[in-house]
Amino acid sequence: MKKLTTTIFTLFALGLLHAQTIESPSKEVKVNFELTKNGQPSYSVTYKGKEIVKPSTLGITLRDKEALDNGFKVVNYTTKSVNDTWQPVLGEYKNIQDLHNEGKIELIQPATNRQINVTFKVFDGGVAFRYEIPQQEKLNHFSITAEKTQFNLTGDHTAFWLPADYDSQEYVYTKTKISGIDHSLIDMGNGISLKSIAKPDAVQTPLQMKTADNIYLNIFEAAVVNYPVMHLATNKSTYQFESILAPSAVGDVAFLQTPFNTPWRTIMVSDDARNIVSQGPQMILNLNEPSKIKDTSWIKPMKYVGIWWEMHVGVSTWDRKGSQNAQNQLGQEAIKFPHGATTQNTKRYIDFAAKNGFNGVLVEGWNTGWEDWAGNWKDEVFDFTTPYDDFDIKSIADYAKGKNVSMIMHHETSGSVSNYERRFDRAMEVMKKYNYPAVKTGYVGRIIPRGEFHDGQRMVNHFNWTAERFAENKILLNSHESHRPTGYQRTYPNYIAAEAARGNEFNAWSYGNPPAHETILPFMRMLGGPMDYTPGIFEIKMSHYDPNKKEQVHTTLAKQLALYVTIYSPLQMAADLPENYERYADAFQFIKDVALDWDDSKYLEAEPGEYLTVARKAKGTQNWFIGAITNENARKSSIKLDFLTPGVKYEAIVYADAKDAHWEKNPKAYQIKKIKVDAKSTLKLDLAAGGGTAISIVPIK
Amino acid sequence: MKKLTTTIFTLFALGLLHAQTIESPSKEVKVNFELTKNGQPSYSVTYKGKEIVKPSTLGITLRDKEALDNGFKVVNYTTKSVNDTWQPVLGEYKNIQDLHNEGKIELIQPATNRQINVTFKVFDGGVAFRYEIPQQEKLNHFSITAEKTQFNLTGDHTAFWLPADYDSQEYVYTKTKISGIDHSLIDMGNGISLKSIAKPDAVQTPLQMKTADNIYLNIFEAAVVNYPVMHLATNKSTYQFESILAPSAVGDVAFLQTPFNTPWRTIMVSDDARNIVSQGPQMILNLNEPSKIKDTSWIKPMKYVGIWWEMHVGVSTWDRKGSQNAQNQLGQEAIKFPHGATTQNTKRYIDFAAKNGFNGVLVEGWNTGWEDWAGNWKDEVFDFTTPYDDFDIKSIADYAKGKNVSMIMHHETSGSVSNYERRFDRAMEVMKKYNYPAVKTGYVGRIIPRGEFHDGQRMVNHFNWTAERFAENKILLNSHESHRPTGYQRTYPNYIAAEAARGNEFNAWSYGNPPAHETILPFMRMLGGPMDYTPGIFEIKMSHYDPNKKEQVHTTLAKQLALYVTIYSPLQMAADLPENYERYADAFQFIKDVALDWDDSKYLEAEPGEYLTVARKAKGTQNWFIGAITNENARKSSIKLDFLTPGVKYEAIVYADAKDAHWEKNPKAYQIKKIKVDAKSTLKLDLAAGGGTAISIVPIK
Repeated sequence: MKKLTTTIFTLFALGLLHAQTIESPSKEVKVNFELTKNGQPSYSVTYKGKEIVKPSTLGITLRDKEALDNGFKVVNYTTKSVNDTWQPVLGEYKNIQDLHNEGKIELIQPATNRQINVTFKVFDGGVAFRYEIPQQEKLNHFSITAEKTQFNLTGDHTAFWLPADYDSQEYVYTKTKISGIDHSLIDMGNGISLKSIAKPDAVQTPLQMKTADNIYLNIFEAAVVNYPVMHLATNKSTYQFESILAPSAVGDVAFLQTPFNTPWRTIMVSDDARNIVSQGPQMILNLNEPSKIKDTSWIKPMKYVGIWWEMHVGVSTWDRKGSQNAQNQLGQEAIKFPHGATTQNTKRYIDFAAKNGFNGVLVEGWNTGWEDWAGNWKDEVFDFTTPYDDFDIKSIADYAKGKNVSMIMHHETSGSVSNYERRFDRAMEVMKKYNYPAVKTGYVGRIIPRGEFHDGQRMVNHFNWTAERFAENKILLNSHESHRPTGYQRTYPNYIAAEAARGNEFNAWSYGNPPAHETILPFMRMLGGPMDYTPGIFEIKMSHYDPNKKEQVHTTLAKQLALYVTIYSPLQMAADLPENYERYADAFQFIKDVALDWDDSKYLEAEPGEYLTVARKAKGTQNWFIGAITNENARKSSIKLDFLTPGVKYEAIVYADAKDAHWEKNPKAYQIKKIKVDAKSTLKLDLAAGGGTAISIVPIK
Repeated sequence: MKKLTTTIFTLFALGLLHAQTIESPSKEVKVNFELTKNGQPSYSVTYKGKEIVKPSTLGITLRDKEALDNGFKVVNYTTKSVNDTWQPVLGEYKNIQDLHNEGKIELIQPATNRQINVTFKVFDGGVAFRYEIPQQEKLNHFSITAEKTQFNLTGDHTAFWLPADYDSQEYVYTKTKISGIDHSLIDMGNGISLKSIAKPDAVQTPLQMKTADNIYLNIFEAAVVNYPVMHLATNKSTYQFESILAPSAVGDVAFLQTPFNTPWRTIMVSDDARNIVSQGPQMILNLNEPSKIKDTSWIKPMKYVGIWWEMHVGVSTWDRKGSQNAQNQLGQEAIKFPHGATTQNTKRYIDFAAKNGFNGVLVEGWNTGWEDWAGNWKDEVFDFTTPYDDFDIKSIADYAKGKNVSMIMHHETSGSVSNYERRFDRAMEVMKKYNYPAVKTGYVGRIIPRGEFHDGQRMVNHFNWTAERFAENKILLNSHESHRPTGYQRTYPNYIAAEAARGNEFNAWSYGNPPAHETILPFMRMLGGPMDYTPGIFEIKMSHYDPNKKEQVHTTLAKQLALYVTIYSPLQMAADLPENYERYADAFQFIKDVALDWDDSKYLEAEPGEYLTVARKAKGTQNWFIGAITNENARKSSIKLDFLTPGVKYEAIVYADAKDAHWEKNPKAYQIKKIKVDAKSTLKLDLAAGGGTAISIVPIK
């Protein structure tokens, strides 16, 4: 970390301190802090002189103790200016600048003699603040019953939202005015097996909005540690949101001990949508603690294939008996399928990975328990150590080692976290014995300890605990059905990816993800961290497997390629079956070529729900990769390649939709052309409806 | 196991089977089963022709499913007569006879097509029955919301009861009529830190009663596995009890999957109180499954000392800082004490154990976390692996090995079971590394997972799981603050003892255990299994440590010796400090001599709340030990030694109260005499108020 300037001012003129203003370095973003008449903390935000958050109050209520929400006096105010640059282990950028001004307001509640600080960090891209509860005589152990953080907005903005569900983020995004947020708009037959709606018409964070005068606003959070993730109650008439948090089994939302800092509450703002998706994730990372892993040399990106999509399209099963796959679970005819995770099939995937330069093979359904695994709130489902009798774990480990391929362990918990934690160390022993350097965890189902939610403090602690435990053992973690990331991968960089949103899999067995889905993801889920979206499906239509099936991926094949660039992740799956890739070897070449870790990223075009174009420079090379995607509408644009090194000649391979391509009518029609480009070139993009373009740009030697 | 006779009859005349009678082998106990008019299962019990349980209905209610409590038809009825003899690994008896008649009523609920069996086992000492829910098409995963098992008694019996508390059994027993059961009689300033009263005036099981015509009745249960332990709601006017079970965090009492059998509900009956305490524990064991541990050769009795009573009397502390012991936790002056678990002090105890032939040394407070350990529902208190810096675990392990003494690990969880389970395997590694063959676990505090109770299914499973996991590692388990045992130590004989009642420790820092306490224990807590009561306190009065202290043990010194015989346990602590034993070396000799495992036990005299005299023959020897205790009243009696081998001469060492002994006024006055006895001898016992006599009888060589 390079620390350029840090200046601290402390102001002691306490009587005058009931109001403070903190400006961003550019002075475009300003926060005004004020105590209300009854001593309640309050803040408001302006952007380029316009109010974007009206005075909004802050507070926390406690179990069996006076609430920390009024009667405060300011006792101290300190400011700090920060301009640091640091290097993530893996990332979209080689260097991340942390440039902000900080103001810390120290408050005391004379009636209780309790102290609390509110600290603001004001970036050019937005505002962050948190509650800090220092160690103090009058407050040691405590539990929070509610956080009452308000976000009073200035108008009836357009919003992209997910319903506040304490157990799932796997919904399709809905776009309405704030006044139109309405859970009844959601089709609940959406393939989500577990739904725990927090409150009518409440929404999740991140919440992406756009004002009538084209300002992009986003409410989110960073560094969720030992605390639930934040949802928002909606007041549709006043355009006010207020934090709501998943309760524990006994109602309290967080059990804590001083000193404690809440997560940062963030308000990103810009009049250019591209700033949200480029600066937003960096702001979230800046608000997280630096890596706690000292030696990070073992943390490498990973491109993988696996025995997984087979079960989603219904040609094999997770269980040994041949009954459990994603097709027949949904009530379709129960056919006898072959078990996917056999020794033979696994070796086939290892061969395919080795041949094509992939360094990982995931195998789901390798272990006993799948016959009766989901939906029954069952405590002991998996033991995480016993392979099925047709999965020779030793022979597979040896085979993979011989081919220089890493096996990726799979720990599906079915939501029974108690059972997983009890067996965790023994599961780890198996991984160490058979050289598994990475793990995919899964949490399909209601949580055990019963009464807890995926989004609550207990589970946030579990997910973070797994990251820490796997780090101790130098194992990469990719969690599915976990809480949405909030930048904690800065602190535990082995937490390489998460799902935590509606992934590609829904296309196989539900009405799927509409073509706009992947244009919204970067404004929502992706702000918090890498996603294991599992792109790369070439056999778009499920009728490929069964003529009666209507389900399909809602993109063109070319757009599936573009997703490797638009969806940032140092862990990427080539999700389709090897035989499907072999039939489209020319298109598959892009997946083989695309990088996973970057020196730089240029968000060239972005509009939530419409389109996204990003160019990324592969780390330590002069190679660039571009991904461009559109929603259900065809789209033409042209992009300047002025980010290329001047004077260098490159070959660009353009993987584009064919002229007659269409996500529904003709999704597999693509064309590949090679052209020469340089920094002065402009590329014309021609995206089909639901289409995309993927481009690799490599210097000509 | 020697299986003498087993006969199975199956009756197919279904129409006639709505009522059945099952008799005990002696025909003194009879159960009548009947379906009520609306098809509800019902039973009644007679003893020697007298009704002792009036018709009482049975049933179970389920979450989101029709209740299994009416609309049944009998589909089959089978009977079986059993006369087996088996050998416990450790026990009160070398051989245990399992002699009973069984009747299984198979029921179907035509409206749901669901099946349930009710199976009765009728012993000469009482009745046991359970619900059996077989694997079936119409019932797989299910959860129980209530068990509605009634016990309709015939009169206003005298009852010895504990309040139904889902988190504690550490109350003083209250003796009233059933109609007088009243929680307001309980002094709640009783030193119990966590109380979770289930329901007003409800009681725990075991529930010992005595009828007006001197019949002893006891309601209890056996083989609690994957199910809560049973409490009883009280109807004081009808003398009816009904089962109540600790709820999970979400309300349901048990999450289950067919096939499943509930624990056995037991009704012990006799007109001789001695039969309750002699036959009762055998009946409970007979109702449990045989040992699941194949090689039990490593399971040995253990007599131990430890760094423990020091903290209870307040001369040292659990924590390193010197602030936490059982005296100052109770609000007394916070003095700076020395940490108990130092290397030097531990070696002193090891020396003492080795010198006196004890094979175990327990050390509490050896590990970090004690500074802030109890009462705050804190998730992560202990890590179970990190010794304090003044406890050199390696040097101590080596020293103990050199002295041929076993170290007993201590795992206090502070109720945070999630944390313990997460760290369990690493804790076990430490135990294996440093040769700890036994562990004492502790659960002081509200349970985490939050919302769960000590007595609920989740915790029953935890305690049983620890037994199983320790068995895998050949480690003996002694649990404190666990649910009350129900004979599961037959199945996991390494579960060598438990606390689960009000132990001797309460005498150090609360109003203590009244002199009658230990005369009631055998009729209550001891029916389920061995108790780590920690007897052997010689410095009876706390004024020994601090002149201002009024607390004391409510027995004479001689009674402390007698408890080693009256309270059965293959694990016994000599709880007092080494220096105290050294001052009373002649009395201490009994603790050194007394056996822990037995060929036979003779309950010579017994009346709950009054007195108990038991003689036990040490396993594989001709040595006998006798313990006789009384309540607050002095008592004289004479006992015949006709259980001794005829013709053999023995030396008896009698450790008796001195003439002027009195538990309060003169507790340490004892006398020791040696006499010659044989099978024709009669011994006169002269017990002081709150006194006792301990006798060793060894053949003269």
